Amino acid sequence: MKNISSRRISNTPFKLFVENAGVKNYTIYNRTYLATVFDTLESDYLHLNEYVQIWDVCCQKQIEISGNNALDFIQKFTPRDLSVLNLDKCLYIPIVNQFGKIMNDPVIYKIENNKYRLSMSDSDLYFFFQGFSLGLDINLCIPEVYTIAIQGPKSELLIRKVFGKNISNINNFQIKKTIFNDNEILISKTGFSSFGGYEIYIYNIETSKNLWEKFFLLGKEFNLRVGCPNLIDRIEGGLLSYGNDMDFNDTVLESGLERFCDLNSDINCIGIESLRNELKGGIKKIIKYFLIEGGNLGICDKPWDIMHDKKKIGYITSSAYSPSLKQNVSIGMINFEFSQIKGKIEIVTPLGIYLSKIYSKPLKYLRNFREA
Amino acid sequence: MKNISSRRISNTPFKLFVENAGVKNYTIYNRTYLATVFDTLESDYLHLNEYVQIWDVCCQKQIEISGNNALDFIQKFTPRDLSVLNLDKCLYIPIVNQFGKIMNDPVIYKIENNKYRLSMSDSDLYFFFQGFSLGLDINLCIPEVYTIAIQGPKSELLIRKVFGKNISNINNFQIKKTIFNDNEILISKTGFSSFGGYEIYIYNIETSKNLWEKFFLLGKEFNLRVGCPNLIDRIEGGLLSYGNDMDFNDTVLESGLERFCDLNSDINCIGIESLRNELKGGIKKIIKYFLIEGGNLGICDKPWDIMHDKKKIGYITSSAYSPSLKQNVSIGMINFEFSQIKGKIEIVTPLGIYLSKIYSKPLKYLRNFREA
Repeated sequence: MKNISSRRISNTPFKLFVENAGVKNYTIYNRTYLATVFDTLESDYLHLNEYVQIWDVCCQKQIEISGNNALDFIQKFTPRDLSVLNLDKCLYIPIVNQFGKIMNDPVIYKIENNKYRLSMSDSDLYFFFQGFSLGLDINLCIPEVYTIAIQGPKSELLIRKVFGKNISNINNFQIKKTIFNDNEILISKTGFSSFGGYEIYIYNIETSKNLWEKFFLLGKEFNLRVGCPNLIDRIEGGLLSYGNDMDFNDTVLESGLERFCDLNSDINCIGIESLRNELKGGIKKIIKYFLIEGGNLGICDKPWDIMHDKKKIGYITSSAYSPSLKQNVSIGMINFEFSQIKGKIEIVTPLGIYLSKIYSKPLKYLRNFREA
Repeated sequence: MKNISSRRISNTPFKLFVENAGVKNYTIYNRTYLATVFDTLESDYLHLNEYVQIWDVCCQKQIEISGNNALDFIQKFTPRDLSVLNLDKCLYIPIVNQFGKIMNDPVIYKIENNKYRLSMSDSDLYFFFQGFSLGLDINLCIPEVYTIAIQGPKSELLIRKVFGKNISNINNFQIKKTIFNDNEILISKTGFSSFGGYEIYIYNIETSKNLWEKFFLLGKEFNLRVGCPNLIDRIEGGLLSYGNDMDFNDTVLESGLERFCDLNSDINCIGIESLRNELKGGIKKIIKYFLIEGGNLGICDKPWDIMHDKKKIGYITSSAYSPSLKQNVSIGMINFEFSQIKGKIEIVTPLGIYLSKIYSKPLKYLRNFREA
């Protein structure tokens, strides 16, 4: 894939660092390169869960929304109450259309009064917002932002070493401004790994490269490696991937994200009435977690049917073999009436039919690592 | 890239055919695999321009718009007059926002009364339409469509052999229904190569595979090969690539697509007023074609500055070395006041500064092939 970059598919400032670290494969996320594996999925996973990794996640493109009505505009698209937002805090917000279907699931943060940014998952939310913005007094743009993630159990030690305790000891979903190389940067305690970590938003290419190099220099003692979101880890951690586990065909409630919905509040969200009705009428399907028996079944590149009593009752959307659980950890969508089955169900994989159990919690609590 | 497919990035029914034909590289287009090279860019190009190729272009995802107001809804987003549309005819339509900026440039065709489909270039037009559709009585969906392109000077002979003269002798941008394997399919005289050809829309996976195999069987005498859109050929043909040559930062007029705009008609398009004003006030920049001297400068993965009298006057967006022109054929955006310069300008490429001339017509008329 290296030589097919074009203006349509972009590289990031960290391309050389990632290649020198021996990246083996990429995917494309928001039309940007994102590494998927460095050594093997399994050894990347084991390292991530013990030490600390630095990730190039510039593919989490951002949308900036500004203007007097910026917050009202954003509130229109999320069932989560945004009135709690402040300069110290970011939020994971499902974005919905008028049917309560999920269009993206970004992290939002506030830059200053009447100016917000959304760090996106893989869908063109900018187009959705453009479609709505006709006649409204708001400004939309896609600012230059370069995002580094520092993830894994040793991430706090590394952040402390680079930025001091004031930054490293922020709480989950807190966000703080700091200065690096005379440039303002933002650090939040967020990220796409089960052990958590930090994400850093940088607004200048040179600064982003210098910071990457500084992390690398100071990270040796914590066994820092260049890494990337790890499929096994994200499934065990219950971290949903937009486009894999849910998309605009699924509602926020079906996506198991009810805890991020304030359906009893009187916020003005275009999808809230539809979601309230869904809750009243009964949710039809819901995302659950699965442990599938058998050896390594590979990854899931199209839905694997979930069967019960010879009837299809759902489908697996993400799967990977877990070296710590010695089974296939999976995420899938299952008809609600079957979502509490205690016994075994059957999964139709490309390698045959295998037995599975349904879990309501992410699977990471089953594994035998020391959690951070 | 083969093993990173997921539900988020999809394969197509033709994956095995493409791999057996020796595909060397892919890009991702509308979150779907699209081959970019089979032998070399140059030899793929020479073959395409002499014989006929079969392409897997399932990545041209489609949006279906239906309902009583479907046509009015679509007309809102294009400055091209859609009243000429009928069941026999498809149209290339730039899609615009309220500022006249280009959001996609699909081909539209009519399925039946009040039902239309748009075969898209690489942007989430579905999200843009969703954003607008709030409260409107229209239906949007993404139907199952598998698209094969038959391209190159021998494509007419091949189509005649498979479907007969009634189909093969349709005019450019005509579209016809026919039956294959008891399934209705659609064939249009369209496509993304300079010699033209046909695109075929199939609505069933098995039928699509059977048709591919039939083409392959009957195509031997025309030296049919599996191919893909060719960068050199598309630049010479002046075929713009959304995301490369223009995107939502550029207006339709800046994209050189004025001939697809009916700005004097009284159609109800959200961007038409803005485009009329732009035309009156003077277009600021415009897409032109360039021949850059020097050896093979490689492809353009970020903009190359165009310089004149030590001032930046534009940027190259697509470039490739042409074996027939022995220079680098390119597309770029240039400040309007400089777009008619007859003398040489300078291009800042990663390999150094090279001289170039500006052309107002696509470069294919310069090459020494026999045109079909």
